Amino acid sequence: MLTRLVERHPKAARYIIPFLVASMIISVPAFANAAAESGEGHSAAIAMTFLWLAILFVLSKVGTLIERIGQPSVLGEIIIGVILGNLGLIGIHWFEPAAVNQYLLFLAEFGVVILLFRIGLESNLKEMSKVGAQAFLVATIGVVIPFIAGTFVVGELFYGDASFSTKLFIGAAMTATSVGITARVFQDLGKLHTKEAKVVLGAAVIDDIMGLLILAVVSSIAASGTLEASTIVILTAKAVGFLVAAIALGQLTAPYIGKFLSMVHTGVGMKLTFAISFALAIAYAASAVGLAPIVGAFAAGLVLDPVHFKAFKSPEYAAKIRKKLESLGDKSEDAVELLHSFDHKHVEDLVDTVGHLFIPLFFVMTGLQVKLDVLFDPKVLAVALAVTAFAFLGKILAGLGTWGGTNRMIVGFGMIPRGEVGLIFANVGMALGVVTDELFSVIIVMVIFSTLLTPPILTFLLKKEDKKAHAHAQA
Amino acid sequence: MLTRLVERHPKAARYIIPFLVASMIISVPAFANAAAESGEGHSAAIAMTFLWLAILFVLSKVGTLIERIGQPSVLGEIIIGVILGNLGLIGIHWFEPAAVNQYLLFLAEFGVVILLFRIGLESNLKEMSKVGAQAFLVATIGVVIPFIAGTFVVGELFYGDASFSTKLFIGAAMTATSVGITARVFQDLGKLHTKEAKVVLGAAVIDDIMGLLILAVVSSIAASGTLEASTIVILTAKAVGFLVAAIALGQLTAPYIGKFLSMVHTGVGMKLTFAISFALAIAYAASAVGLAPIVGAFAAGLVLDPVHFKAFKSPEYAAKIRKKLESLGDKSEDAVELLHSFDHKHVEDLVDTVGHLFIPLFFVMTGLQVKLDVLFDPKVLAVALAVTAFAFLGKILAGLGTWGGTNRMIVGFGMIPRGEVGLIFANVGMALGVVTDELFSVIIVMVIFSTLLTPPILTFLLKKEDKKAHAHAQA
Repeated sequence: MLTRLVERHPKAARYIIPFLVASMIISVPAFANAAAESGEGHSAAIAMTFLWLAILFVLSKVGTLIERIGQPSVLGEIIIGVILGNLGLIGIHWFEPAAVNQYLLFLAEFGVVILLFRIGLESNLKEMSKVGAQAFLVATIGVVIPFIAGTFVVGELFYGDASFSTKLFIGAAMTATSVGITARVFQDLGKLHTKEAKVVLGAAVIDDIMGLLILAVVSSIAASGTLEASTIVILTAKAVGFLVAAIALGQLTAPYIGKFLSMVHTGVGMKLTFAISFALAIAYAASAVGLAPIVGAFAAGLVLDPVHFKAFKSPEYAAKIRKKLESLGDKSEDAVELLHSFDHKHVEDLVDTVGHLFIPLFFVMTGLQVKLDVLFDPKVLAVALAVTAFAFLGKILAGLGTWGGTNRMIVGFGMIPRGEVGLIFANVGMALGVVTDELFSVIIVMVIFSTLLTPPILTFLLKKEDKKAHAHAQA
Repeated sequence: MLTRLVERHPKAARYIIPFLVASMIISVPAFANAAAESGEGHSAAIAMTFLWLAILFVLSKVGTLIERIGQPSVLGEIIIGVILGNLGLIGIHWFEPAAVNQYLLFLAEFGVVILLFRIGLESNLKEMSKVGAQAFLVATIGVVIPFIAGTFVVGELFYGDASFSTKLFIGAAMTATSVGITARVFQDLGKLHTKEAKVVLGAAVIDDIMGLLILAVVSSIAASGTLEASTIVILTAKAVGFLVAAIALGQLTAPYIGKFLSMVHTGVGMKLTFAISFALAIAYAASAVGLAPIVGAFAAGLVLDPVHFKAFKSPEYAAKIRKKLESLGDKSEDAVELLHSFDHKHVEDLVDTVGHLFIPLFFVMTGLQVKLDVLFDPKVLAVALAVTAFAFLGKILAGLGTWGGTNRMIVGFGMIPRGEVGLIFANVGMALGVVTDELFSVIIVMVIFSTLLTPPILTFLLKKEDKKAHAHAQA
């Protein structure tokens, strides 16, 4: 009946979804009670985790419905987590065990490793060197200004009594542009091949590396409690050394390893397993030298070139079939989907498939940690707005780092989205005890604002640019 | 240098792989020491698990090289686990923490749920009803004879002093044919569309359900310690009721849920997430009514028809392109791969991608639990051989359940492979305390023998049948 209703009135879906979500949440106590009755220790905990996974997986996808109003999925996933994590405010405490479930926390960590690996795969040393100087300048301005503003302005103004480590974390969390969000915004707007998009993507990659180095430095300062120059130098050397060594070694060996593996076995299982195992091993190696596992995962992605894992043995064959299909002149959604599969049927797709499950879990679990009640504090809101303002300003100024006819406003606003990395900083800071629940919420609010406001602003700027180009062509 | 060597002498790969594995194992202490030094509690445990995962993932794929000598991957995965789990015999204890790592055990459990879900997806109520009576008779004989032989002959002869529950588990572990192994053997031999293959596959599906019911019954008997008829009736009613209800409800609602979801969102992420969440939720529901989670996962797979998750909106379009591609007359490996992708680019592929990672983990972890030292006991070997003989005999007799020109030997030997389900029985039995380390090893040995010996025997029988058909055609 419900389905028939939706078939007749497709737009009804947007009203039915919230209803389904509500029903799902309301039906949880029945499940929870059944679990309590069937309690048999270890295996019952695993079975219960299966139920949590099913609920969080589905709800994370419900969160992606936020795309329908033009916002990126990550925002929806966090919001879902925030909602579930704060049902306690209205007396519903069912989701509280999920927030501390060790298996879910492990899978979320696995998810964020997959995400950073995926971002690394998307990035590529060659593309970065092409956008070159401009991307580097944009990245540097976009990291330095928010970092200084966060540490010395926001930190001093609002957290004068806090430790210097806390102030550093405020600055650090404001630095890193989210490659994923940035790329998604340009892609959704069909502007992935403009010069602005390339500069932003290049800068975002460099900016990610800078951000990860900053994380390593500020984490160590927070952990050891000191700010000795030698510590920073050693840590930076260690981090840069690890990255340079991993990348150099990877660049040298990855093609051979890829060839070797494709000789040994051609199945997709082997490719996926090798790729993810490589990411996990480097993530572990990074953690063994004192860096965050995600730093390693990102480096692993940068090193691996997806071309070494291609689905077709002969690229010529794929090109031939592609041409044949294009000659059919079919512009239907199915035809586009098929052609798309020729470009993307490689290891990135396989990693994405695994990522589809576990990456959203990280953001839902992150949302689950947000304590909305601290936001009722006027100070938190004031700080969050100040942090957001500086976070925006720093990136808009970063746009000045480009030249040669680039639209600086588009580049600047393109750099605004914060996401994964800012949240990772917040998580690391919390684990180190220098980021309080309150500050964590401030950072989340900044991420939400930067994620929420960028798409409409960028859309406006890109359409304005289109009109200008159109008027210019007619004149 | 290594790569160049392999390029020049491709066959060298088979000698290099064992060398690489040996190097990997030897290099573990360095990793392990680094982990111990960087130890920071929770996050260090997670990072260490990333390393275990990387090692076990890669080694599980190395295990699949056993395919090169015509054996199924599952055997290689178990053997890898057995090797790693028994390095203690030569004084190497590095892998012992992995065998009890809670995150790995959870992921292995997740893997086996994915596997049973996948087997369920592969199975299908319609196909089962086509092979009908013969498959049912073959399944029944193939379950009843090994179960009785295991419980009353092997059990009484070798475990006369043990509890009746232990004897029941011996019988139970001998019942279930592995759908995965059976299908893989016929597929590898290119005989998937013969009548024999259909009967075996149909019977294996029914046999799986019977096996799962037996597991539910014997688990409950072992757990409650009683053998009252009412318990069996209630449990059977509960199990059958759960399955019938799940299947009936699923059959009725799945097409609508599928349609509804494809209206809401067409991305692969949504399809995969829904499918796996459905499996996990039903796995939990099964555990809530006292069944094993895998019973639920299997039912979830049976209920979901992959056609509801197809990649192309219009099957007509896929058929058109398929025809176009076939008209090119290309018989290359790439062309076959592409055509194959038209048949399989649906939810099964997505589930397989996730399965590629976590299913082998279950078998490696299972292997890790095998204590080889108990095999040095002559009694264990004697029992293992007796169990294996009865396990073979029961299934060969099951071949008598077919008629109408079917080769009964092929059907009988096709039913022999035991695998996942037998190991699951062994695991459940261990968890319940009725299966000892020794008996667990006996079951593993039976699974290894049945898995190892079937492919060559089936190959021999199928080639003999081919020759007979050929001679008949010439006469």
